[in-house]
Amino acid sequence: MNTVSNDKLDLFFGRRSIRVYAPGAIDEQTLSILLKAAMAAPSAMTKDPWRFVTVRNQAMLGRLAAALPGGKMLSTAAMAVVVCGDLDAALEQRLGYLLQDCSAAIENLLLCAHALGLGACWVGIHPSEDSARQVREMLSLPKAVLPIAAISLGWPGEQLEARTRFNPAYVHPERW
Amino acid sequence: MNTVSNDKLDLFFGRRSIRVYAPGAIDEQTLSILLKAAMAAPSAMTKDPWRFVTVRNQAMLGRLAAALPGGKMLSTAAMAVVVCGDLDAALEQRLGYLLQDCSAAIENLLLCAHALGLGACWVGIHPSEDSARQVREMLSLPKAVLPIAAISLGWPGEQLEARTRFNPAYVHPERW
Repeated sequence: MNTVSNDKLDLFFGRRSIRVYAPGAIDEQTLSILLKAAMAAPSAMTKDPWRFVTVRNQAMLGRLAAALPGGKMLSTAAMAVVVCGDLDAALEQRLGYLLQDCSAAIENLLLCAHALGLGACWVGIHPSEDSARQVREMLSLPKAVLPIAAISLGWPGEQLEARTRFNPAYVHPERW
Repeated sequence: MNTVSNDKLDLFFGRRSIRVYAPGAIDEQTLSILLKAAMAAPSAMTKDPWRFVTVRNQAMLGRLAAALPGGKMLSTAAMAVVVCGDLDAALEQRLGYLLQDCSAAIENLLLCAHALGLGACWVGIHPSEDSARQVREMLSLPKAVLPIAAISLGWPGEQLEARTRFNPAYVHPERW
């Protein structure tokens, strides 16, 4: 612990799913930092199968909010980043790699949002077939491109306590 | 950018896959911080299906290194954390959710390792059936617990430049 500031660890424990937003847009430079952080994640054999649709259009945010269970807050977000995966680009064209790669990028994006003082929430799309079908149509996604999650972004309108859900029962030394 | 130190952004760009390690153990307190950061990741409906096998035994590290393609460095790592997912615990018992949840936890663990000055590398297991079968046997995993990746950890023995693999062609404004 002596080699690291509490600041850096706050990043992990202070990041919470923020569903209430204050007014205010997210400028292009800030969005660019978020996407650079997302694309700094590791991916299987560096195939980088992640793709990003950035949604600022209010009507589209409303449609996403209506389509996605647990996604109501998208209608009040400054914007959303819909993270997709291109199955043709993934290692061995396998969904299992695509999902791991996209999820690593999403987690970077969420943590970077928190580092920048933004609030964000991971709204699931995959593996819900109904959600995926609707988002695919709304965003005109090519056949090989799977929508994985919509990340709602805005300036935080709620403050949540830092926490971890660490559970010692989930840790097995040496073997199960 | 004016609200955030470069330090915090270095976390994303400075984290690299470190495959060469200097001598030195990772103490239990440091491991505990890594696991707390991993379990601070979001998960679908907070089901937290992630499970962790912490491997310090040198012989077992050698067996993991021999079993996993791209995992040779595990034999010289201070330790490994094998991240698994319990399908019975995942939302709707679906692999798609399990993989996203475990990958978010893994990315937190990797970034936290970097924040603590450690070097780490994500060695894939899932969806390789052969890798999964071998790790499952080695670690005596229950039937519903799937090994997803082995994270090698050690004090860094190589320095890699900060970077992002940001590609503007992967970003689509408003729709595809």
